[in-house]
Amino acid sequence: MHEPATKPIMPKLPGPARLLHGGDYNPDQWLDSPDVLAQDIELMKKAGVNCVSLGIFAWAKLEPEESRYDLDWMAAIIDNLYDNGIYTILATPSGAKPNWLAHRYTEVCRVNRDGQRELPGERHNHCFTSPVYREKTRAINTVLAKRFADHPGVILWHLSNEYNGECYCSQCVDAFRLWLREKYGTMEKLNHQWWSAFWSHTITDWNQIYPPVPYGEKNVHALTLDWKRFVTHQTVDFMRQEIDALRAVCPDMPVTTNLMGFYPGLNYFKFKDDLDIVSWDNYPQWHTGDDVETAMVTAMAHDLMRSIKGEPFLLMESTPSMTNWQPFSKLKRPGMHMLSSMQAIAHGSNSVQYFQWRKSRGSSEKFHGAVVDHCGHGNTRVFRDVAELGSRMADLGFVADTAVRPDVAILYDWENRWAIDNARGPRNSGMHYVETVTDHYRPLWEMGINADIVDMECDLSRYKLVIAPMLYMYRAGIEQKLKDFVSGGGTLVGTYWSGVVNENDLCFLGGFPGGGMDEVFGIWAEEIDSLPDGQTNALVLESDRSVRYPVSELCELIHTRGAQVYATYERDFYAGMPVVTQNSYGNGEAWYLAAKADPAFLREFYRKLALARGITMAIDADLPHGVVASLRKGTSDLVFLQNYNNQDAIIMLPTTMKNMETGEAERTPVLGPYELMILEL
Amino acid sequence: MHEPATKPIMPKLPGPARLLHGGDYNPDQWLDSPDVLAQDIELMKKAGVNCVSLGIFAWAKLEPEESRYDLDWMAAIIDNLYDNGIYTILATPSGAKPNWLAHRYTEVCRVNRDGQRELPGERHNHCFTSPVYREKTRAINTVLAKRFADHPGVILWHLSNEYNGECYCSQCVDAFRLWLREKYGTMEKLNHQWWSAFWSHTITDWNQIYPPVPYGEKNVHALTLDWKRFVTHQTVDFMRQEIDALRAVCPDMPVTTNLMGFYPGLNYFKFKDDLDIVSWDNYPQWHTGDDVETAMVTAMAHDLMRSIKGEPFLLMESTPSMTNWQPFSKLKRPGMHMLSSMQAIAHGSNSVQYFQWRKSRGSSEKFHGAVVDHCGHGNTRVFRDVAELGSRMADLGFVADTAVRPDVAILYDWENRWAIDNARGPRNSGMHYVETVTDHYRPLWEMGINADIVDMECDLSRYKLVIAPMLYMYRAGIEQKLKDFVSGGGTLVGTYWSGVVNENDLCFLGGFPGGGMDEVFGIWAEEIDSLPDGQTNALVLESDRSVRYPVSELCELIHTRGAQVYATYERDFYAGMPVVTQNSYGNGEAWYLAAKADPAFLREFYRKLALARGITMAIDADLPHGVVASLRKGTSDLVFLQNYNNQDAIIMLPTTMKNMETGEAERTPVLGPYELMILEL
Amino acid sequence: MHEPATKPIMPKLPGPARLLHGGDYNPDQWLDSPDVLAQDIELMKKAGVNCVSLGIFAWAKLEPEESRYDLDWMAAIIDNLYDNGIYTILATPSGAKPNWLAHRYTEVCRVNRDGQRELPGERHNHCFTSPVYREKTRAINTVLAKRFADHPGVILWHLSNEYNGECYCSQCVDAFRLWLREKYGTMEKLNHQWWSAFWSHTITDWNQIYPPVPYGEKNVHALTLDWKRFVTHQTVDFMRQEIDALRAVCPDMPVTTNLMGFYPGLNYFKFKDDLDIVSWDNYPQWHTGDDVETAMVTAMAHDLMRSIKGEPFLLMESTPSMTNWQPFSKLKRPGMHMLSSMQAIAHGSNSVQYFQWRKSRGSSEKFHGAVVDHCGHGNTRVFRDVAELGSRMADLGFVADTAVRPDVAILYDWENRWAIDNARGPRNSGMHYVETVTDHYRPLWEMGINADIVDMECDLSRYKLVIAPMLYMYRAGIEQKLKDFVSGGGTLVGTYWSGVVNENDLCFLGGFPGGGMDEVFGIWAEEIDSLPDGQTNALVLESDRSVRYPVSELCELIHTRGAQVYATYERDFYAGMPVVTQNSYGNGEAWYLAAKADPAFLREFYRKLALARGITMAIDADLPHGVVASLRKGTSDLVFLQNYNNQDAIIMLPTTMKNMETGEAERTPVLGPYELMILEL
Repeated sequence: MHEPATKPIMPKLPGPARLLHGGDYNPDQWLDSPDVLAQDIELMKKAGVNCVSLGIFAWAKLEPEESRYDLDWMAAIIDNLYDNGIYTILATPSGAKPNWLAHRYTEVCRVNRDGQRELPGERHNHCFTSPVYREKTRAINTVLAKRFADHPGVILWHLSNEYNGECYCSQCVDAFRLWLREKYGTMEKLNHQWWSAFWSHTITDWNQIYPPVPYGEKNVHALTLDWKRFVTHQTVDFMRQEIDALRAVCPDMPVTTNLMGFYPGLNYFKFKDDLDIVSWDNYPQWHTGDDVETAMVTAMAHDLMRSIKGEPFLLMESTPSMTNWQPFSKLKRPGMHMLSSMQAIAHGSNSVQYFQWRKSRGSSEKFHGAVVDHCGHGNTRVFRDVAELGSRMADLGFVADTAVRPDVAILYDWENRWAIDNARGPRNSGMHYVETVTDHYRPLWEMGINADIVDMECDLSRYKLVIAPMLYMYRAGIEQKLKDFVSGGGTLVGTYWSGVVNENDLCFLGGFPGGGMDEVFGIWAEEIDSLPDGQTNALVLESDRSVRYPVSELCELIHTRGAQVYATYERDFYAGMPVVTQNSYGNGEAWYLAAKADPAFLREFYRKLALARGITMAIDADLPHGVVASLRKGTSDLVFLQNYNNQDAIIMLPTTMKNMETGEAERTPVLGPYELMILEL
Repeated sequence: MHEPATKPIMPKLPGPARLLHGGDYNPDQWLDSPDVLAQDIELMKKAGVNCVSLGIFAWAKLEPEESRYDLDWMAAIIDNLYDNGIYTILATPSGAKPNWLAHRYTEVCRVNRDGQRELPGERHNHCFTSPVYREKTRAINTVLAKRFADHPGVILWHLSNEYNGECYCSQCVDAFRLWLREKYGTMEKLNHQWWSAFWSHTITDWNQIYPPVPYGEKNVHALTLDWKRFVTHQTVDFMRQEIDALRAVCPDMPVTTNLMGFYPGLNYFKFKDDLDIVSWDNYPQWHTGDDVETAMVTAMAHDLMRSIKGEPFLLMESTPSMTNWQPFSKLKRPGMHMLSSMQAIAHGSNSVQYFQWRKSRGSSEKFHGAVVDHCGHGNTRVFRDVAELGSRMADLGFVADTAVRPDVAILYDWENRWAIDNARGPRNSGMHYVETVTDHYRPLWEMGINADIVDMECDLSRYKLVIAPMLYMYRAGIEQKLKDFVSGGGTLVGTYWSGVVNENDLCFLGGFPGGGMDEVFGIWAEEIDSLPDGQTNALVLESDRSVRYPVSELCELIHTRGAQVYATYERDFYAGMPVVTQNSYGNGEAWYLAAKADPAFLREFYRKLALARGITMAIDADLPHGVVASLRKGTSDLVFLQNYNNQDAIIMLPTTMKNMETGEAERTPVLGPYELMILEL
Repeated sequence: MHEPATKPIMPKLPGPARLLHGGDYNPDQWLDSPDVLAQDIELMKKAGVNCVSLGIFAWAKLEPEESRYDLDWMAAIIDNLYDNGIYTILATPSGAKPNWLAHRYTEVCRVNRDGQRELPGERHNHCFTSPVYREKTRAINTVLAKRFADHPGVILWHLSNEYNGECYCSQCVDAFRLWLREKYGTMEKLNHQWWSAFWSHTITDWNQIYPPVPYGEKNVHALTLDWKRFVTHQTVDFMRQEIDALRAVCPDMPVTTNLMGFYPGLNYFKFKDDLDIVSWDNYPQWHTGDDVETAMVTAMAHDLMRSIKGEPFLLMESTPSMTNWQPFSKLKRPGMHMLSSMQAIAHGSNSVQYFQWRKSRGSSEKFHGAVVDHCGHGNTRVFRDVAELGSRMADLGFVADTAVRPDVAILYDWENRWAIDNARGPRNSGMHYVETVTDHYRPLWEMGINADIVDMECDLSRYKLVIAPMLYMYRAGIEQKLKDFVSGGGTLVGTYWSGVVNENDLCFLGGFPGGGMDEVFGIWAEEIDSLPDGQTNALVLESDRSVRYPVSELCELIHTRGAQVYATYERDFYAGMPVVTQNSYGNGEAWYLAAKADPAFLREFYRKLALARGITMAIDADLPHGVVASLRKGTSDLVFLQNYNNQDAIIMLPTTMKNMETGEAERTPVLGPYELMILEL
């Protein structure tokens, strides 16, 4: 997976245009305004747009009444775009149901968690199980494929839009029961794994099972977990049906769908085998908090999206100015549009696409940022920012020959997240799993160390360092993978609240971490103490007891079984007990952090570890706060130097490096506010 | 409309008693206690009560079983009141359904937003569409009118009680669809105005339309807006049916209904043609915050209610002590009952009425303030306060010959409010439309400048100054009215976020403010920046760049097209761009405030403007903080001087003025805590 | 009731083992692991366990399909326990329905407040009215009784589990209507008591009545109150059916059910006649706030539970470490397990039982504290703490010969609580009834004065001092009881907001406090002022006007009618009005506190009162903060000296006392952190 993409994924795309720039285009809203459509083309060319996403919400225009299709308008648009050098990513329109469809076939509308069938309207709310909806999407997808698959301008399928949500209709409930039968085989096995003897919940008939709802079962965590898995399964299954309809007509056209980063509702790793390309929609909220922190969180999301397939991805949506759904629609400050767009590329994207090309005139997204505003011309700050980026990207074709190849993997697992968040105890006011993963990502990002964000089903063998925070659940044979990884010479970092349950949330017996991982870490965990917000303890280094760092939230009381104690608790009745340990196992080593550590500790910890284990940094230099570097390797090794400060930053490079855009040699470059520079390593 | 009321609206009311004093009277709760009823009369006379509201919730007593009416008890009450010099405002009883009615005809009960038919009980919760409920109210209204319309003591109809709320039953949904057909004529027009191509929401059958509900469409803003309009329409339509039943019997008896100030759910301006008199229920929360601010907000509400018909109104409900539904039921401090009651009169009321005469013995309002407490006698602080006011009012008959006639109008438009509040973006955490209108009202109130609060359908030609904050939506031809107003010599003040959409929330194309208002203001607005709470920028005066005022929340980035720049932004990337501009247009001028300005700026701004444009002030003097003046004009011009401080205030009058109650001449009067004085101008 | 329990309540229990130690035991979850079951016995013996609660959630195992019973596994468990010296408290399994039962008979599932029938699952959610559920529980209870009642190891029935909640199904609604008919007899009486003329709510047919629900009536407080009473009635009625089934087989085996302290939903005093023993589940949250305050609140809950029958009770559940349902699962610090367990005994418990013996492997309580953790051995801190307590308790048999016998009663009445909390006004943001009762309990607890917590139906004649905070509602003839109590020489302390309504929330007429209690207190209350949070007034002692204490929240304006003024208000318009008064009545006296007083005032007030009225203190000494004493009287009078500080405390005893465990004489003992000492008085 880490090999550079040697053959193009989108075969129709010529080399020089491999970085895509453009966005969602909804001419279906303006078909009665030919002047607007003509102006669109002119403005796109001015803005350096070479690719649009078309037809995402156009079903009502494509099939204005049942089985009567009208694709001519779309053909004219695609032709015109292509004639002007603009490619089309063509959507399947399942994201929004036409009113006639929802009205005639109510089964396509979801039943919500309260048991209520939803009325027609909104979007992203069709039942994934409904045979009618599957048939109707198959039909329209087939029609679209037959008409447009061979068009030279159509380069990629954009499946639906931001698949999400759940349906609780009886067809979904039946499908869930069937999925459980296939998973468990027998009721006996299900009863054991769900530990249903508890509270007399023994299942004696598959039909006794219902999804977790507010007016039913909420406390059988294995049930809730299986329901979430089923939702992912059913969503992928629906997507696969969409793909099948397309493949039947045009087997070679690649497919993507636009994901949503750390969206909690779906395990995106389950999408990897069905998608040719991962793409995603990225909406950080700049300038309303700490921009450096926002940049870090955004970087991690890019890395997650890239890691799903381990290949370059596409930034499918972003806003050229602001959103209209966040608490404050703050404008992007000058420079930030360029920087935040290039950040995606630095982390492995081969595109910058927007939602949306032109602001719609009415309805709920009319105030969402767009390249073209309601004023209808290009004489705006936003348009100029976009055009500037388009112009720059046009010269960055060489970037598409490179890819991100980290030495480090952080384990982030959606099913683990579901299990931790759904559990009762040990800290109902906040376990903060994702935040903890982020805490471990932050120092790497600060040091210019690229990291993959992978789940338990991924291969770990290519990494030097694997970080596995709060690996509460062990599944997919992760224990064996980790043992192999460490014994093979790898370095593993684990934390408190690891190895507690199996894949069905059933506790390991005999002590935590279970599954034999106590041997890898050389410790066992007896109890876990939960501190209220604001309360802290501290860890004290064994090597220098004057050095202490705060710990908070969760403090595990562990005992060594062979591990060396690196730090101990400072206070409370467990003062002196180990809190950080190091254990040799095979040819590698495993660290255990028994309490939630402060960012300052993690920064020091990973700095030493990176040095000791020879982890690649983009630049071997101390960068000023808010300045970071990210690396793409390939025909050249490219360092993307990014300044997230709203002021100048002077960078002391370890050596003279070539500025890939100016060709000049840089040694102590000055980056202006929100400026980005591409250097050759 | 601004002419003094030369012929009496309530013909039966003799001259000397034209200021009404009394309140809601519920003898139907005490029919088995004749001693209580007898005592009521005695206490009313002691308290100076000359008018009560009767029968508001008496339906169960008036029609104890279907079609069997019992009005004799009411006749006896009305006779007895009249014999003792007390007039009756007679209610139609539709505010609360008898249990037998709700139980037999479930269609009269509302279906709530969740789609659930409500059970019998509560009040103000009948379906406005239900033919059964309309028939039953028609019948009881007819019976009441026939029996009591000719009674010399019955002076006014009190329609129902605080009409409010919504019903989502199928009859209402059908009525809504019909209303839409009548409004739009064709589905094509509706689809265009609703911009329904967005998200494939094209309507192909009127029956595909549902009201906005949590389990259905929530994001088609034009639909939501039309639903709110329909709710007002249907409420007025129901009210009109009530009126028709009464008019058929007694065409000359005037009607009112008790409104609720800035209540968000209904556009009260739509009531103006059907009501003979506007009345309203006023419940400020004194002494729990800043009393001066509370007084200002209350004054504005009085002005709004008065402006609906542009005539004197009635204060129909207020509490003589405290409510029982606010977070804290704090007692009115000594003097505040007098002052807050007289404030209503100062702003145009010809009455002070209470909810309620006597505390009910049980159920949910038993702890709501009343003239007579559970102890049952008049030896209480509250009773004495009421009697003192009654005695004073008896000498203020001359006030009824005067009315409020402002030079200034502030545009406050319910439909604009709905559109702003329902929109997504640009500041979902708070657009603060009503608060912003209030910010522009505050300095006028402080300076003793009377203002009308009008909507876009009102006539503006009589004013010197029109203030139109956040006029996001243009409807009812407001662009033309404003152009005529300014070109005719008027002064207009507008702000950011104006002229964005038409009456159906469809954006103007070509730049904001739309509808040609860019010419009136001489500017165009490119972007709008939204600041989180606590963040500010500042405006700097062009005339003196050392003078700066904070701006916050929303900062529009505008460009002049002929306007003069009065102030510019101080900071951020739009530093130096215009933030306050002034433009000559025809014989008048138009100011544009591009950011949410601080009260201190608005105070200075309007002070200068009032001076420059010759706006009438009640008193041409600097009043101490918390002391304000309000003016009623007529046979005499009366200045109501009010002290909202809990301490003495010395007033320097510009000239000697006559105290209308003592007859003495005042030059530097001292007002005690919460004291009020009536002076002749 | 205050006599020591001379004959044993649990006849099968031999003398030496009268203090029980053990907990909930769920072997039904481990029947396929005989090694686990064998280990359980070994570990129980190590931990000093002599009693377990069995079968609480075992219905699915006892009746795996309808009418097929399997009790052999349970028989083997009970035999084995008994053979090892461990008694069994046997549960009826109605707390959790088997899936087959809920699935086949949906009527056993509740209908919730939103009108929705709940799905199978969860627990504690059966309909109390359902004939089917009653029949099924009768059947299983009968089978259990026949099989196990004669077993020498089975000592007590544990009825169901934590009865709670409400059902709104049509069968419950019908039962409610019938209950109302029986209570009121005629609709006329109901209409009068509910004051239904208000808002035209007159009932003309019993079937017009519905329970209070969000989509129906919420504001008829008498209806809400009656509904809550009905819920208690129906719960007790269900419990009685369970008892009847058992009694029919084994009339002599005692019954208990585990209550939940101040749980708001049920009036536990209504359980007293049907239960032989009161037991309860106690889960304070140690170490997350002020431990001393937590200890005080916990002590009060023990006292309430004890007062229900006025006899020793059982602590049926507590956690040996932490819960998993509180916001933070903080570990019990060393010593706290011993101290908090012994606190129960100090306040009258004859047991320390746990939820749970062994952590379940899956589902929602798998992280709830237990004696045996997932690691499965006894080599843990928690196990050692439990074993230490077991060992100590084994030597405390003499404690079972003593009981708590207070001089003081505090009136806490669930129906009064419901009425206050449900009322609208005078302080909707918080009346704080329970907190106010607690405020009056605190100084007693600090001084080592034992108190009963009784309701209005209890006998007051045995006490010297009765404290009745916020006795808003008068019911059960409390006025006469209080008059008799005071005139007979007792001391009564009452407060503001007393004597306002009768038992149906109907206001007294003629002045508050009603029912003639104005004579007892010698005052009448005119108004009540409600202060926002943070605002205060103060009370000033008449005897020394330099002494002042804050008052807050509610300030009643009272007038004396014979009482002496002890303190007056300091500020505001009621400065100088009485706030604390004392009145002689018959041979006793009655104090009235017209405002919510500060803890510091109450501390001084009760100290003086205790001295003046000769109230018994456990130790006549000033104890350090956080150290308290509680007294059990009997063959010996035992003082339980408790240190809730996490540091040493030196106690100056008034005289030399015998340490009951060491036999040594103590004069100035030092108690370590969280240490407890038992002294003989």
